Amino acid sequence: MDENIGKLLQLYEEYKDMGLELHMERGKPCKEQLNISMPMMDVLNSSADLNCADGIDCRNYGVLGGIEECKKLIGDMIEVPAENVIIFGNSSLAVMYGCISRAMTHGVLGSTPWAKLDKIKWLCPVPGYDRHFSITEHFGIEMINVPMDSRGPDMDMVEELAKDDAVKGIWCVPKYSNPDGTTYSKAVVDRFAHLKPAAKDFRIYWDNAYSVHHLYDDKQDYLPEILAECEKAGNPDIVYKFTSTSKISFPGSGVAAIAASKSNLAEIKAQMAIETIGYDKVNQLRHVRFFKDLAGITEHMRRHADILRPKFELVDSIFKKELSGIAEWNAPHGGYFVLLKVKGCAKEVVERCRAAGVVLTKAGATYPYGKDPYNSDIRIAPSYPTLKELETAMKILCTVVKLETALHGQKTE
Amino acid sequence: MDENIGKLLQLYEEYKDMGLELHMERGKPCKEQLNISMPMMDVLNSSADLNCADGIDCRNYGVLGGIEECKKLIGDMIEVPAENVIIFGNSSLAVMYGCISRAMTHGVLGSTPWAKLDKIKWLCPVPGYDRHFSITEHFGIEMINVPMDSRGPDMDMVEELAKDDAVKGIWCVPKYSNPDGTTYSKAVVDRFAHLKPAAKDFRIYWDNAYSVHHLYDDKQDYLPEILAECEKAGNPDIVYKFTSTSKISFPGSGVAAIAASKSNLAEIKAQMAIETIGYDKVNQLRHVRFFKDLAGITEHMRRHADILRPKFELVDSIFKKELSGIAEWNAPHGGYFVLLKVKGCAKEVVERCRAAGVVLTKAGATYPYGKDPYNSDIRIAPSYPTLKELETAMKILCTVVKLETALHGQKTE
Repeated sequence: MDENIGKLLQLYEEYKDMGLELHMERGKPCKEQLNISMPMMDVLNSSADLNCADGIDCRNYGVLGGIEECKKLIGDMIEVPAENVIIFGNSSLAVMYGCISRAMTHGVLGSTPWAKLDKIKWLCPVPGYDRHFSITEHFGIEMINVPMDSRGPDMDMVEELAKDDAVKGIWCVPKYSNPDGTTYSKAVVDRFAHLKPAAKDFRIYWDNAYSVHHLYDDKQDYLPEILAECEKAGNPDIVYKFTSTSKISFPGSGVAAIAASKSNLAEIKAQMAIETIGYDKVNQLRHVRFFKDLAGITEHMRRHADILRPKFELVDSIFKKELSGIAEWNAPHGGYFVLLKVKGCAKEVVERCRAAGVVLTKAGATYPYGKDPYNSDIRIAPSYPTLKELETAMKILCTVVKLETALHGQKTE
Repeated sequence: MDENIGKLLQLYEEYKDMGLELHMERGKPCKEQLNISMPMMDVLNSSADLNCADGIDCRNYGVLGGIEECKKLIGDMIEVPAENVIIFGNSSLAVMYGCISRAMTHGVLGSTPWAKLDKIKWLCPVPGYDRHFSITEHFGIEMINVPMDSRGPDMDMVEELAKDDAVKGIWCVPKYSNPDGTTYSKAVVDRFAHLKPAAKDFRIYWDNAYSVHHLYDDKQDYLPEILAECEKAGNPDIVYKFTSTSKISFPGSGVAAIAASKSNLAEIKAQMAIETIGYDKVNQLRHVRFFKDLAGITEHMRRHADILRPKFELVDSIFKKELSGIAEWNAPHGGYFVLLKVKGCAKEVVERCRAAGVVLTKAGATYPYGKDPYNSDIRIAPSYPTLKELETAMKILCTVVKLETALHGQKTE
């Protein structure tokens, strides 16, 4: 056995003997982050006036698309007019699911319901978000990988593939992308806005999950606002923009929203009116009373950043020290993930880490059907563990990456 | 012109001149009812421990089917074990919509997705709940009327129609039914439990919306628990039972739930896992901390009853005085509605009332496609107006009923 491998194996066994249990598989905010939002629990109490600005009693039934001041708050956050916003429940994923489900049973603005078609295809920039891929897979939609680079998805490929009228949409996380932290360039956004897919019912699923989730005041990525760009390009109906406050207020107890053109919103509302009498207006009001306005959200996100930034910087510094020349990774300006690219041994690394108590996102998760063709991508979610736990986890990870890279090198020599 | 008609017309014109605006179109709780739940706004504040009993931080992601103590609370309320319960968001209507939507795209426990079938049919006990009918209509499902009597739906007809394997389900509001206040008899429930429809993917949609919504302590209807009855009958998968706290805590800010067999729940959860990371656990916890247990809910519902009972009794007493021999109605022991049956002039009555500022549920709404074949049903929702407003509204309604009945009598003579 290679001497280096022997040493790494010995070190790994020592880590294993520590009996750790460190969870880093999802982009979960940590306790300190949740604590920032605790004062939100006080803004509505039993003596509070629960009428919203236009006098509607938020406790009662009604108001299908969300209360006005919440549409304004979320609209400001995602840079669209309130009139282009609908507020839903707590999950933007459920809003996306709902859009595809509705298209399956009812089509899109008059098109044939997708369930009636033989074949539906979807473009999936990779690496991407596993829960997106799960939705399209659930509906039996054929997913086509589109490679990402530092400017966003390969737009030549997107434009070419969109000539097939079975291609009905694309998943995008355009800012601080999950998992590679990329923000789409102006040119990429522009090409999306001007996209002329063969299918009239093609939609860009623009999941702007990390729009205000910066790590730095002085290094923020800029993303042009897609609705306005599409409108300017004479293409207003091509995009659904999604957002939520899950990683702003409380995950699971926030508000989610869609922003879209008037025609798209009218269709969505017509279906919503069948599904529900309305979403939780009290929680909408709670968010408005707590954040007040965009400035309130910005200030709040600075406090999140103060907690997250040292974690991301720690990951980067350990990787720099341990993995230079061995693996590649990004140092994002925001979002929730670092993408570590190893040499053909991602699955082995993740499995060996798990055996030592460091639970990472399943290898392959960043690709449709869980199939990473290069077996290279490992998604790191640094938010949940403490700095100390994170340091331990990253040291174990680095040891394992070095070990598996060496073993992999032996095999392929 | 008939002298009586002349007098009624004159009285009606006087009412019209009052320029009233009284809304009774929906079963909306009134302000006083909402106030009962205001202390719920205090149970979770910024110093509260937001961990649930098993230590899970309710503020964070996760827990797909709802927190254990909420499943227990809702399970106790609807008389099923917690393990048969899934907690959703704020709307039981959305849960029902989701069940049909899932069946359309994915079938039921392995059956062909309904969207792939030429024809789907549904049984609709009438009169019934308009929002139920809207869901089935939205999905292009052919609705078949099944008449209700004081024991529930005509079960001979249900059993006969269920021999058609295109018939995939039935809407039921089994207790204090919307709109006629009926509670299904033991024999009817028994026949439902033993139903053997041709379609394996037939489901009874048991919307137990008013399970604890009694008006009296000493006059409560009894409904056998359907899950247990189906289980005993060797038919455990045939029913989905729905409930929510919309008319217990806050409409729109409550929790909704489904109760079903293990197989049904497993299928529902598998799809839920694609749609969302979880529903609002903080709100689930808020409900548990506020109500504590079934006794807490029972006591709370007594306070609702104290507000609602005088309204229902007022309606009954005015109808008795004004409409005996002219129309028929029920005096329910619970729920939210009184059904007034007039002689072939429901549409005319509702329109004329609206012209005088009394807004009732649209005539026909209690039938699929909005078509009341007898033009007889008027749904009265006494909860929202004050007693004084209700008295005025009922007097106007009675005048209009007498007037339109007389006019209708002239026409048909």
